[in-house]
Amino acid sequence: MSNVCEILTLADLCAFLKENNNYVILTHVAPDGDTLGSAYALKYGLETLNKRAQVVCCDKIPHKYNYFIEDSNVDFAPECVIAVDVADIKLLGDLHSQFEGKIDLCIDHHISNTKYAKRLYLDADASAAAECVFEILDELGATFDRKTANALYTGLSTDTGCFKYASVTEKTHKIAAKLYTIGVDAAEINRIMFDTKSKNRLELEKLVLEKAEYHFGDKCMVLSVTSKMQKKTGCDLTELEGVASMSRSVEGVIAGVSIKQVAKDKFKISMRTYDPLDASAICKELGGGGHKAAAGCALTGRLSTVKAQILAAVKNEMERKNAGLTTN
Amino acid sequence: MSNVCEILTLADLCAFLKENNNYVILTHVAPDGDTLGSAYALKYGLETLNKRAQVVCCDKIPHKYNYFIEDSNVDFAPECVIAVDVADIKLLGDLHSQFEGKIDLCIDHHISNTKYAKRLYLDADASAAAECVFEILDELGATFDRKTANALYTGLSTDTGCFKYASVTEKTHKIAAKLYTIGVDAAEINRIMFDTKSKNRLELEKLVLEKAEYHFGDKCMVLSVTSKMQKKTGCDLTELEGVASMSRSVEGVIAGVSIKQVAKDKFKISMRTYDPLDASAICKELGGGGHKAAAGCALTGRLSTVKAQILAAVKNEMERKNAGLTTN
Repeated sequence: MSNVCEILTLADLCAFLKENNNYVILTHVAPDGDTLGSAYALKYGLETLNKRAQVVCCDKIPHKYNYFIEDSNVDFAPECVIAVDVADIKLLGDLHSQFEGKIDLCIDHHISNTKYAKRLYLDADASAAAECVFEILDELGATFDRKTANALYTGLSTDTGCFKYASVTEKTHKIAAKLYTIGVDAAEINRIMFDTKSKNRLELEKLVLEKAEYHFGDKCMVLSVTSKMQKKTGCDLTELEGVASMSRSVEGVIAGVSIKQVAKDKFKISMRTYDPLDASAICKELGGGGHKAAAGCALTGRLSTVKAQILAAVKNEMERKNAGLTTN
Repeated sequence: MSNVCEILTLADLCAFLKENNNYVILTHVAPDGDTLGSAYALKYGLETLNKRAQVVCCDKIPHKYNYFIEDSNVDFAPECVIAVDVADIKLLGDLHSQFEGKIDLCIDHHISNTKYAKRLYLDADASAAAECVFEILDELGATFDRKTANALYTGLSTDTGCFKYASVTEKTHKIAAKLYTIGVDAAEINRIMFDTKSKNRLELEKLVLEKAEYHFGDKCMVLSVTSKMQKKTGCDLTELEGVASMSRSVEGVIAGVSIKQVAKDKFKISMRTYDPLDASAICKELGGGGHKAAAGCALTGRLSTVKAQILAAVKNEMERKNAGLTTN
């Protein structure tokens, strides 16, 4: 595309938001706590500045986020389209073609943002898009109520594994502290986001663990979630969050592989690595991509063949990095 | 006991710490991240003020805490004994009789502190003893190095489930933010504390989940860890942390029971509840005690008998609280 994407400073961005009035805020496909929390907090904050805004997502919003979701004032003609936490226009899912070339502003924290919008505010040091939105609303002088605090906290907390990840900074905790002064329901949010599993999901974990495989001297763990397991436990693909991190949670494992069957002969692979391995290098070899510690790809074939392909790629990366590869 | 316990303000406490020089700092039995992190941070901080201090614990310190443990300057005559995060003198374990009546100062955050020390600095609003120690060292003008920051962060993070619990406040996050400015290795600490399980432990979880029971219309979950399971997987009692919280992690469960076999016919019970149930009321009925959301007791007999006793107590509490008890 020949579109030019204007990179905005915080001041530029705030000036732009003040100038305009009626916003559509887009989230990414398969919406998570950060895209939703950021989008709704932005909506609520703009509303306190007498703007109007509605949040639009191509997918149904999971009911677990209901505590911060309130759709109102949708009876207006949108003038300005904002995408929040959307690194690539393809991540708009079914809304992609409708909004192609029509995104006026993107607010993001992904260094990999493809600059598809007319204007981009990018803070790649932010642990979550919610961190950016907090700063924007603070700069704009918006009023924060409890619902806004809950939305922002949800973004912060879910995108950082509850302040666990390396992306967390002094600023992340400072913002969290401020949200407590607004009465954020943090413990209840964390309970919903991190400590509540369905009985079916627990059943699925049991089945997955029963078939766990270790390779390369226990440095690589492979977890497979077959269609049969999903059917047996009644868990659909939206309930498989967290299986990827399970694959890297065992002492000594530096390559965690999770293979989710999405259809006959079709698999979605999530790769999680620790130093010195690079998950994105492994997935690139398999036609996918991602970050150093977390990446993914899609493979077709029989499960045994797919597994062999992945293990070969893991082995190559272990050899490249001299990661004490032993036979197993 | 007829001993009088003097309640200290932060200023009193700092004056006391400035007056004395050579400290022994005691932790509680079965030491966790908070008692150890607080004790070592206090030692390191006092050392920057030209005091001498050594940490003493009746148990061996688990090797996973090695990253902040450095014992030096132990060649001195102790003048003053401090207990940190020790709510009751019995929690000194094997050091109990040796130090009975000889604790000059206790620094704690448990509202249930039994005032066994000559002086007590208690901040029951602190999410962790490490929160108290940070404030004390800050007030004293101690220097914080990275090791001290790592010790304090370990206390904060482990006692709050990584900032998840209701005990977390604005202050907790503000302190965490300050520790980031000193270069705390937070992501690595959280990885060790929360995301690393032994392969044996994962095997044990599989066995425990296989035998999971649901009662009272799935409102109560019971997890049992038998001696047989411990033997089969090679997990000892020190590796069973977290099983208690597993018992409350299923959607709809408001009473999570975990039963750990400690010897033939001897069981340690952990109870975790959500509103409206009171875990301490259930455990009191069984001869134990604790907090509203987390309590425990010890029972003897056959597993089936013990289980029946616990279920009866859970049922009573459900009836008392009108918690929608249904038959199952």
